Amino acid sequence: MASYRLVQLAELTQGIVRGNAELVITAVGGIHDVPAGGLTFAENERRLQEALRSPASAILTAPNVSLPSDTDKSFLLHPVPRLAWAKILALYSPFATPPVGIHPTVVMGEGCELGDEVSLMPYVVLGERVRLGNRVKVYPFCYIGDEVEIGDDTVLYPHVVVMARVRIGKRVIVHPGAVIGGDGYGYVQHAGIHHKIPQIGRVVVEDDVEIGCNTTIDRATTGETRIGPGTKIDNLVQVAHNVQVGAHCLLVAQVGIAGSATLGHHVILAGQVGVKDHVHIGDNVVVGAQGGVAKNLPPNGVYWGTPAVPHHEWLRALAHLYKLPELFKRVEALERRLRERD
Amino acid sequence: MASYRLVQLAELTQGIVRGNAELVITAVGGIHDVPAGGLTFAENERRLQEALRSPASAILTAPNVSLPSDTDKSFLLHPVPRLAWAKILALYSPFATPPVGIHPTVVMGEGCELGDEVSLMPYVVLGERVRLGNRVKVYPFCYIGDEVEIGDDTVLYPHVVVMARVRIGKRVIVHPGAVIGGDGYGYVQHAGIHHKIPQIGRVVVEDDVEIGCNTTIDRATTGETRIGPGTKIDNLVQVAHNVQVGAHCLLVAQVGIAGSATLGHHVILAGQVGVKDHVHIGDNVVVGAQGGVAKNLPPNGVYWGTPAVPHHEWLRALAHLYKLPELFKRVEALERRLRERD
Amino acid sequence: MASYRLVQLAELTQGIVRGNAELVITAVGGIHDVPAGGLTFAENERRLQEALRSPASAILTAPNVSLPSDTDKSFLLHPVPRLAWAKILALYSPFATPPVGIHPTVVMGEGCELGDEVSLMPYVVLGERVRLGNRVKVYPFCYIGDEVEIGDDTVLYPHVVVMARVRIGKRVIVHPGAVIGGDGYGYVQHAGIHHKIPQIGRVVVEDDVEIGCNTTIDRATTGETRIGPGTKIDNLVQVAHNVQVGAHCLLVAQVGIAGSATLGHHVILAGQVGVKDHVHIGDNVVVGAQGGVAKNLPPNGVYWGTPAVPHHEWLRALAHLYKLPELFKRVEALERRLRERD
Repeated sequence: MASYRLVQLAELTQGIVRGNAELVITAVGGIHDVPAGGLTFAENERRLQEALRSPASAILTAPNVSLPSDTDKSFLLHPVPRLAWAKILALYSPFATPPVGIHPTVVMGEGCELGDEVSLMPYVVLGERVRLGNRVKVYPFCYIGDEVEIGDDTVLYPHVVVMARVRIGKRVIVHPGAVIGGDGYGYVQHAGIHHKIPQIGRVVVEDDVEIGCNTTIDRATTGETRIGPGTKIDNLVQVAHNVQVGAHCLLVAQVGIAGSATLGHHVILAGQVGVKDHVHIGDNVVVGAQGGVAKNLPPNGVYWGTPAVPHHEWLRALAHLYKLPELFKRVEALERRLRERD
Repeated sequence: MASYRLVQLAELTQGIVRGNAELVITAVGGIHDVPAGGLTFAENERRLQEALRSPASAILTAPNVSLPSDTDKSFLLHPVPRLAWAKILALYSPFATPPVGIHPTVVMGEGCELGDEVSLMPYVVLGERVRLGNRVKVYPFCYIGDEVEIGDDTVLYPHVVVMARVRIGKRVIVHPGAVIGGDGYGYVQHAGIHHKIPQIGRVVVEDDVEIGCNTTIDRATTGETRIGPGTKIDNLVQVAHNVQVGAHCLLVAQVGIAGSATLGHHVILAGQVGVKDHVHIGDNVVVGAQGGVAKNLPPNGVYWGTPAVPHHEWLRALAHLYKLPELFKRVEALERRLRERD
Repeated sequence: MASYRLVQLAELTQGIVRGNAELVITAVGGIHDVPAGGLTFAENERRLQEALRSPASAILTAPNVSLPSDTDKSFLLHPVPRLAWAKILALYSPFATPPVGIHPTVVMGEGCELGDEVSLMPYVVLGERVRLGNRVKVYPFCYIGDEVEIGDDTVLYPHVVVMARVRIGKRVIVHPGAVIGGDGYGYVQHAGIHHKIPQIGRVVVEDDVEIGCNTTIDRATTGETRIGPGTKIDNLVQVAHNVQVGAHCLLVAQVGIAGSATLGHHVILAGQVGVKDHVHIGDNVVVGAQGGVAKNLPPNGVYWGTPAVPHHEWLRALAHLYKLPELFKRVEALERRLRERD
């Protein structure tokens, strides 16, 4: 069980203690689930009020919130409290690290190169000429195809499929059931038959990417499907062949991106958004949940709806949409009055 | 092959026979697929007419439908015929039960506790200190992480992933490829970088839940993501971290529920519905297919559209939407007439 | 490494060479990824201009585009250039074929019948009485249930689940993580409880079908869920119980088809489309991305929106929707003028 004094947590996060610096913290939790005596987290003034009523003994918050004087709780202050929270949660993680080494049930093809301190857990299959960096961790039932390259400190959770010739960078996390490098969906119709276009390209996943459970990223027809560095992909997302996702994007659950679409950096696609093939989305664009991007979007905007339009336009259209019954009546009234005058 | 006399089926379902009680039923099927001589099912008058033209020898229906006198078919009457149908289909299931016992290829960590008559099929991996109840059945390639608890009579079909510390109740059915307990999608952006917020909570799946193929249910950041008792989840559904789903809900295929949303009991979300994070949906609410729930919904309503509004409002707006071209013409005509008068 | 002279590629595709027939082609690629000296592909005039600026030495294009005279590039002309491209890409595929034979880790039930030259790779599990045709290839971690039948030349990529009694035809390709034959989502609600309706039917996948990564196709309640010949299904698609998909359909990523819906032949459902249960979609219908099909659609139309309407109707409604703010102002102006006159 993790156990730190509040002052230690302050040192580790470069925060400041208000109250009992020697308080021993053996548990952490959100406002609604922190156990008695634990540390909780309040991002702002309003949340702090809730946190003060929780059974926590200590609260991580920002230096600019006003702390009560009449409390027996202690405080850890940090200018970006959520960042400090992330660091502290890692300290209290109850999860074990897989043991270093190669389980005897691992099946490995010829010519594989493994870095130092690699963990290959039971029932992992590697094809030929696979290259794994240092400290790569592969959980049970992962399949890694021929000539795949995986960088240092990357983790593949159980049941991940990485098809042949995919390249994965460093510090990447791939969650259970994700499939990287399945065939792109490409056919040529001729005389009523869909003929398969072989998909002989690859997928490149750059450093610090995270890929969610059961997400699918297809290999390119030729060339590369690419996920830029620092991009985080949620569960059940579909990334089609030849898509280029920029750096530090967020693709929320169930997003679908069609073939050859390109995203700039820091693009955010909320849940269930769809993007048409060959469309370009500019840097820093945000698309609201369930939106459908059907044409190029310039940088820096917020878009909503199907087809996606600037947010304020969508809000206005929507507001008017639900006033339509009233508008129809007003037009009828106008017509009636004009008829009466004739 | 299952074989029952019609009177036996009546006894087992507490129904009543009209016609030949000694008729031997060796097959069952829907109206369009029942083989000759089998038993089929007609929920109401209209379906009964179709069933009478089928090759079935016997028809399960309700006592309040009017049976024909000039037929050689026999009838099984039950006040809730679909409930009786469910019982009878189980009797005619062609599927074998997996053998009790632990296949020699199973890999099990230290400190696991197994109930009576457990089935662990080939290539199952259990972490440490896993606890399985009586008669739990685990199909090939399931991964069960450290300290997972699974209640009596639960079935995990092939390729299910249950990550560490998840708790699953009794009589739960998890279909192939489902992932329970993957990391929630949580980051804190700082200086353009998305820093991972460790997800150290768990998932609790209560009794009598069913979870569809390739569905994903994320662990909580802290605390619990919870699926209430009796809730049935279809395929490819996404349940994010800290979501609380109440009892006896139906989540149809490809639904997505964002972080910390809460659902009351008996909520029905039709296919491809999306729910915003932190939103609350009241008891007995129904949301129509592809709807997007963007704010709290009080109990007992039927909602539709994105953003979801009361069904009648949506229908009215929609009806008017498709009459807009006409409305524009009517307004133009009014403008023309007023101009002519000026 | 594949290597063909341009004249050989012409012979293999029944095309014609313009330029250096003896040119040796050791690589192929799209316009933006073709390596120097390789063959690229330009479907039309506009693409040809781009291709001429690429480092390719040869360009596959159509006979009706006008070729430049002042170029050192050679050309391969074909009346359906994309079809020829598909053939050529197959020649340059870098992927190895799995070795014929049964890996010692394969677990096989009693009474299985295997055709000639079958490949069962490591950690494949077959139930009882499974029948595999000639040259069937099964990648690691596939689970094939009791009494499944799979036709000649079918490929199951890693982590495919085929539940008991499913029938798969010839030359079918199933991509990683797909689940065929999970239970349909059927319940009868009685006294507030959802009682499971056992799903005892099967799935039939006909010849030449392709099924994408993590796609789910549920078994029928009774009878069959059927995927017609030549139909191509993308990733993360949901096909519910008793659905009948006709021949040569395209179901793009994240499509969801509810129970007992039926599709004619050559139906195209674009990404994220949803289809209501029991609806029929006629032959050759196209439904645009994110559309929701809520009632029967006659053959040959193009539909869009939720609920799906003819494309031109949807476009017109949409155009007017975004002019609504203006229309409200115009109606207000009319009202003001009429008031002023009173």
